[in-house]
Amino acid sequence: MEEDNCCTSQLPAETQAPAMEERDPESNSSTLQEPLLKRNRTLSSTPLAIVGTKVSHIESLDYEINENDLFKHDWRSRSKVQVLQYVFLKWSLAFLVGGLTGLIATLINLAVENIAGYKILAVVNLIKEERFKLSYLLSFLVHISHVFDRVAFMTGVNLVLTAFAAVLCVFFAPTAAGPGIPEIKAYLNGIDTPNMFGATTLLVKIFGSIGAVSAGLDLGKEGPLVHIGSCIASLLGQGGPDNYRLKWRWLRYFNNDRDRRDIITCGASSGVCAAFRSPVGGVLFALEEVATWWRSALLWRTFFSTAVVVVILRAFIEICNSGRCGLFGSGGLIMFDVSSVEVRYHVMDVIPVVLIGVIGGVLGSLYNYLLHKVLRLYNLINEKGKFHKLLLALTVSIFTSVCLYCLPFLAKCQPCDPSLPETCPTNTRSGNFKQFNCPDGHYNDLATLLLTTNDDAVRNIFSTNTPTEFQPMSLIIFFILYWILGLFTFGIAVPSGLFLPIILMGSAYGRLLALAMGSYTKIDQGLYAVLGAASLMAGSMRMTVSLCVIFLELTNNLLLLPITMIVLLIAKSVGDSFNPSIYDIILELKGLPFLDANPEPWMRNFTVAELVDAKEPVVTLCGVEKVSKIVDVLRNTSHHGFPVVDEGVVPPLGVAAAGATEIHGLILRAHLVQVLKKKWFLQEKRRTDEWEVREKFSSVDLAEREGRIEEVAVTREEMEMYVDLHPLTNSTPFTVVESMSVAKAMVIFRQVGLRHLLVVPKYQAAGIPPVVGILTRQDLRAHNILTAFPHLARSKSRGKHN
Amino acid sequence: MEEDNCCTSQLPAETQAPAMEERDPESNSSTLQEPLLKRNRTLSSTPLAIVGTKVSHIESLDYEINENDLFKHDWRSRSKVQVLQYVFLKWSLAFLVGGLTGLIATLINLAVENIAGYKILAVVNLIKEERFKLSYLLSFLVHISHVFDRVAFMTGVNLVLTAFAAVLCVFFAPTAAGPGIPEIKAYLNGIDTPNMFGATTLLVKIFGSIGAVSAGLDLGKEGPLVHIGSCIASLLGQGGPDNYRLKWRWLRYFNNDRDRRDIITCGASSGVCAAFRSPVGGVLFALEEVATWWRSALLWRTFFSTAVVVVILRAFIEICNSGRCGLFGSGGLIMFDVSSVEVRYHVMDVIPVVLIGVIGGVLGSLYNYLLHKVLRLYNLINEKGKFHKLLLALTVSIFTSVCLYCLPFLAKCQPCDPSLPETCPTNTRSGNFKQFNCPDGHYNDLATLLLTTNDDAVRNIFSTNTPTEFQPMSLIIFFILYWILGLFTFGIAVPSGLFLPIILMGSAYGRLLALAMGSYTKIDQGLYAVLGAASLMAGSMRMTVSLCVIFLELTNNLLLLPITMIVLLIAKSVGDSFNPSIYDIILELKGLPFLDANPEPWMRNFTVAELVDAKEPVVTLCGVEKVSKIVDVLRNTSHHGFPVVDEGVVPPLGVAAAGATEIHGLILRAHLVQVLKKKWFLQEKRRTDEWEVREKFSSVDLAEREGRIEEVAVTREEMEMYVDLHPLTNSTPFTVVESMSVAKAMVIFRQVGLRHLLVVPKYQAAGIPPVVGILTRQDLRAHNILTAFPHLARSKSRGKHN
Repeated sequence: MEEDNCCTSQLPAETQAPAMEERDPESNSSTLQEPLLKRNRTLSSTPLAIVGTKVSHIESLDYEINENDLFKHDWRSRSKVQVLQYVFLKWSLAFLVGGLTGLIATLINLAVENIAGYKILAVVNLIKEERFKLSYLLSFLVHISHVFDRVAFMTGVNLVLTAFAAVLCVFFAPTAAGPGIPEIKAYLNGIDTPNMFGATTLLVKIFGSIGAVSAGLDLGKEGPLVHIGSCIASLLGQGGPDNYRLKWRWLRYFNNDRDRRDIITCGASSGVCAAFRSPVGGVLFALEEVATWWRSALLWRTFFSTAVVVVILRAFIEICNSGRCGLFGSGGLIMFDVSSVEVRYHVMDVIPVVLIGVIGGVLGSLYNYLLHKVLRLYNLINEKGKFHKLLLALTVSIFTSVCLYCLPFLAKCQPCDPSLPETCPTNTRSGNFKQFNCPDGHYNDLATLLLTTNDDAVRNIFSTNTPTEFQPMSLIIFFILYWILGLFTFGIAVPSGLFLPIILMGSAYGRLLALAMGSYTKIDQGLYAVLGAASLMAGSMRMTVSLCVIFLELTNNLLLLPITMIVLLIAKSVGDSFNPSIYDIILELKGLPFLDANPEPWMRNFTVAELVDAKEPVVTLCGVEKVSKIVDVLRNTSHHGFPVVDEGVVPPLGVAAAGATEIHGLILRAHLVQVLKKKWFLQEKRRTDEWEVREKFSSVDLAEREGRIEEVAVTREEMEMYVDLHPLTNSTPFTVVESMSVAKAMVIFRQVGLRHLLVVPKYQAAGIPPVVGILTRQDLRAHNILTAFPHLARSKSRGKHN
Repeated sequence: MEEDNCCTSQLPAETQAPAMEERDPESNSSTLQEPLLKRNRTLSSTPLAIVGTKVSHIESLDYEINENDLFKHDWRSRSKVQVLQYVFLKWSLAFLVGGLTGLIATLINLAVENIAGYKILAVVNLIKEERFKLSYLLSFLVHISHVFDRVAFMTGVNLVLTAFAAVLCVFFAPTAAGPGIPEIKAYLNGIDTPNMFGATTLLVKIFGSIGAVSAGLDLGKEGPLVHIGSCIASLLGQGGPDNYRLKWRWLRYFNNDRDRRDIITCGASSGVCAAFRSPVGGVLFALEEVATWWRSALLWRTFFSTAVVVVILRAFIEICNSGRCGLFGSGGLIMFDVSSVEVRYHVMDVIPVVLIGVIGGVLGSLYNYLLHKVLRLYNLINEKGKFHKLLLALTVSIFTSVCLYCLPFLAKCQPCDPSLPETCPTNTRSGNFKQFNCPDGHYNDLATLLLTTNDDAVRNIFSTNTPTEFQPMSLIIFFILYWILGLFTFGIAVPSGLFLPIILMGSAYGRLLALAMGSYTKIDQGLYAVLGAASLMAGSMRMTVSLCVIFLELTNNLLLLPITMIVLLIAKSVGDSFNPSIYDIILELKGLPFLDANPEPWMRNFTVAELVDAKEPVVTLCGVEKVSKIVDVLRNTSHHGFPVVDEGVVPPLGVAAAGATEIHGLILRAHLVQVLKKKWFLQEKRRTDEWEVREKFSSVDLAEREGRIEEVAVTREEMEMYVDLHPLTNSTPFTVVESMSVAKAMVIFRQVGLRHLLVVPKYQAAGIPPVVGILTRQDLRAHNILTAFPHLARSKSRGKHN
């Protein structure tokens, strides 16, 4: 069909590579042929993200199926057995992801409960001894010195645990710090943050999380568990750690970004399920908060994974109930059971319910705002180096320990209410009504909340039928303390989850509100605490259905469902009117180019042609291309995809005898590098047969994305040879006509999950290039477009439909 | 920019319209210019569906945003206030949909419970009298005659009720028969089944459902409630019934298929929520089973609707608890509460659980298979006319009544177990342990299940801590009876839901299995019944997460969750290996062109160019077109979209001085008809200014889709005039290059929600048309492609990835 396969444009062979950091590696537009005349209108793109603390280059993922000849052959030749292998493997991996996540969650729970348990027991015993002596000596100085002893002991233990977690994080896997959920969200949106899902990250996350949670810091293990689940999924999918991959034949089916995306979605929902023992909540969390693409088949597979997690957790609880887990308590499948209380509400209860929702929304968005400020401050500190990061973590740990121990002295001792069925006071590791420094028959309500693990604190503050347990002053102190701790703990270099701090804050404020309501409401104070926690989470994280189900499964009280729903809806609406969700804020802060679901309204009046005009011209390759041109292009640009165009072809209708051009497709940088590496060169300029390429390349080879042009050496003679790019080209790239609005192009880009979108001309005539541009994720981000076209920002203020 | 706007191709003005029923009205390909040379390879399309009983023409919906000049102007000129109006309206409609669905569900529940209640009370009283007499007379003949009396009474009442429902359905709204869920699923996929969401349909569905359920037929009110919710949503969205629409200004925002789709999704989930009192289950049902497109914002809004439903239902139950609802019982928010039983299970319980799942899957797919056969048979009967349909419904009613009353005589009377807390025997309307014909202190276990409403039957068979209540023989009779009734009741001309019949069958088989297990298992028999019901539903309907949550909310037992999940997963997997879900079978049977989520594997090796070749050439219009051409095209084709092409334009680069062509976009038939109706003609061939079109058309006008070409009269002079189509053309249609694989084209079509997909040439040269074809839903359906290209069927056997 072709007569002449040579492209006319030639790159100068010896051009130096420009500073790569300043240009988008996804985008394909060359600065080589044209001066930057339109610099002030050029689309700026920042493919940089804060990963750990370093600023790293990030890439997009290829979710599109690369339909080149090799793929098509592989697809045609797949036997029924292979299809079954693939399906079987998918389900086995889903099973393994659930199983391993469940096991590791068990391990973390066991470790935390035991380490924190022995620590608290030791402190309690010290107090017990001292209380005994105090009655004899009554010496103020001795008292002070004893208090100091205990503070020093607790601070010391916590400091060691924090140091352990922080050293792991700072020196071995900076990406393991924080919750990891924003990065997972970005991954599922198509952004490959480096080193997020490695084996080191997994190990650091597990042990760092144990250390940080045991150290009594104001953070949860829930977020890290989600990340752990995703790491396990990623490692299983690729057959092991990066350097020691299993070379099992079956795993080749999973050597693509699509299947990895699916399995990581399973991992994320397993993580949530393991964190909250909430299988349906886990699936919904993945659906509502984390995943960008969703299919019915995925719903089913994530559901399977979470079912496995729940079975594992149940088995573990059964074992622990027989007392073989050390200090691990007798928790059930439900963490914070409030099912014992009868829920009775009337029309009048609408007012407090609405109030909780509104206040939760305001507080949640305020928290987001302040956390954003603190994280910016922390970024400045973290930039100074590893030592500063470590120091920051240790400072926060000391502050936390001192507060946790000293503040309970501010609370007055309360006499025990003998009518309650629970033991009071308690001096054990867990349990409500802590005695602390109080005489017998009395308890310290602030110590009940502070001198315990975070999980037990939640259990205590959720306790029902205990309307007189907590004093308003204690709750206020607790709320303010956790508000401050929550803000300053989240950004330090340890694995930290956001869920638990927010639940703690929210429950305190809910209970406070219940006290303020007094006899107006008949709803139990414990339920108010639950509603407060839910409202603050909705106000900060902006989830609805998944939070609702998580709270349902967490608290085991179905009758609470309708009011929980109302509270969540109000809190989310109020929060949304102030600022974006906390995860979106972190995504923005890290510089991850997340693509939103809804296009901005002004994108409707803006065509892709205008966008493409603002970029440098696209670099295209010929169907049969000279080696020197390929080497030049690869060396001198940082793009990841190049349109392949045939020139001078005769279309079947024969209208234009010559001079017609044809889009053949899109070739990836990785495949070009492979061609050069394997030296699949032709002496003459000709098209190859299908068997020729199959001799040299397998579909397994093409799945490799690691090759770099710097590793390739091409001799001078080889430079003059040719490569037939046709068989390696994805012949079915997604395209839009240049008159398409950016809004619709963005919808297609996100809905289908693209990395490159070719722009074809709306004109049909001789001499017009068949591809006029290429769009990538960075080009379609509202922020980048507005930077290049400031006049659009005016219409932006019109607000956003949904 | 243009020099010459005239297209070269001209249609013969006097061509007769071909038989429209045989061609796809969506597709744009003309038989006018070319003989049907390729008839044997032409893509067949059957845009016909069984709607009610009639075979009707169906159309696709326009979910794509029609970005023409008017739309863009309207979008630009929308003030902040209007955006707020729109958002406010969306939420108000979601509120109203939830509220009205809740109210109507309440009404139906009240009516059914009272009508069926008084009916059963009357029968029970007859029995009571007779039992009294019997002890005196002991005459066999009298006994027989009394039995006959009672059967006649019950049959008579049921017959009247069935006749009421069937007459409504047959004569007023044939589309109200059946559950309606498949049609809703099709609507959300983009298929507009006629008369599905009208006011008549709504009323017939409500009263028909009351009649049919009260008549004791083996059907539920759950499916109809989903349809009712959707009808309410559709009517509210369009401002009232078709002929009496509210002309409120604000409602203009909703005069498009996209917003109607969203609101109908809310309606469907409200319906499920109202049926099962399951708010989260309702949302998930819409997500998993019904909806094709899903966005986070939708998740939130459906959740809001279901929250409103739950609040309404709760308020209603509160009112009824004070005894103001006649015979309506003391049901709670939870229908079939099994929370009182303690769930304890061990590793060994895995075996019965797996067994339930496997048997459920097999039985479910067998049920689907048999139901398919029965429905085909019924279609033959229904085709004969309205009288036959009525007769069929009445026959089924008589058969049901006779069975329900006579079969209990087969069961032996059981002595009451005094250790149970429940009253035994009972002679009231509801209640367990019916006395029926038994002496005092005894009960008839089959009568307990049969002589009651379906809801109460489920409650009784789910009853926990009653291991000796039911005899195996009674359960077997019950199971077989309901299997037969379920198969033969579903297709009759009354509103009928599938959920309840399947729950009844499933619970009977679950309880049977529990009896068979004997002492092997420690799980309560009532829980087995729940698991059996879940497994049969999963085996037949193939839902997982939503069913799981519905059962969770229905039975109020969270600890049952893990085993329910396992049962559901196994049953669905087993069922899927036999046949598609029951809804897919019905969709297929009705001929609705539903577009599946996953492309078939062979579609990867098949390009859209091959598909377009098999169709007749596309009919394109010029940017400024002669009126006579437009009239011809509209009269002689039945297509709904026409590409608009400008010829002889000069592209900005000026490469081709003339002869270039340009895609301008796609114009809809409805808009062409409006142009003709409003006689927006130009004397000369010229482009208009934006204000000219705005004087004549508003965006409200363009939303109208009712116009028909037959209603338009154009004079001979007007025929020679011109129309500027540019401002009315959607200038950003979605396109694919002809080398695109059908698999990817289908993904884009479904993911973005298209009605027309333009195919552009991969060649770039003078003389090539800028649009080479147009693809519609019918062209992308696997079945249609395989009919036109039989050789593809061979590779099809390779199976389907997911």
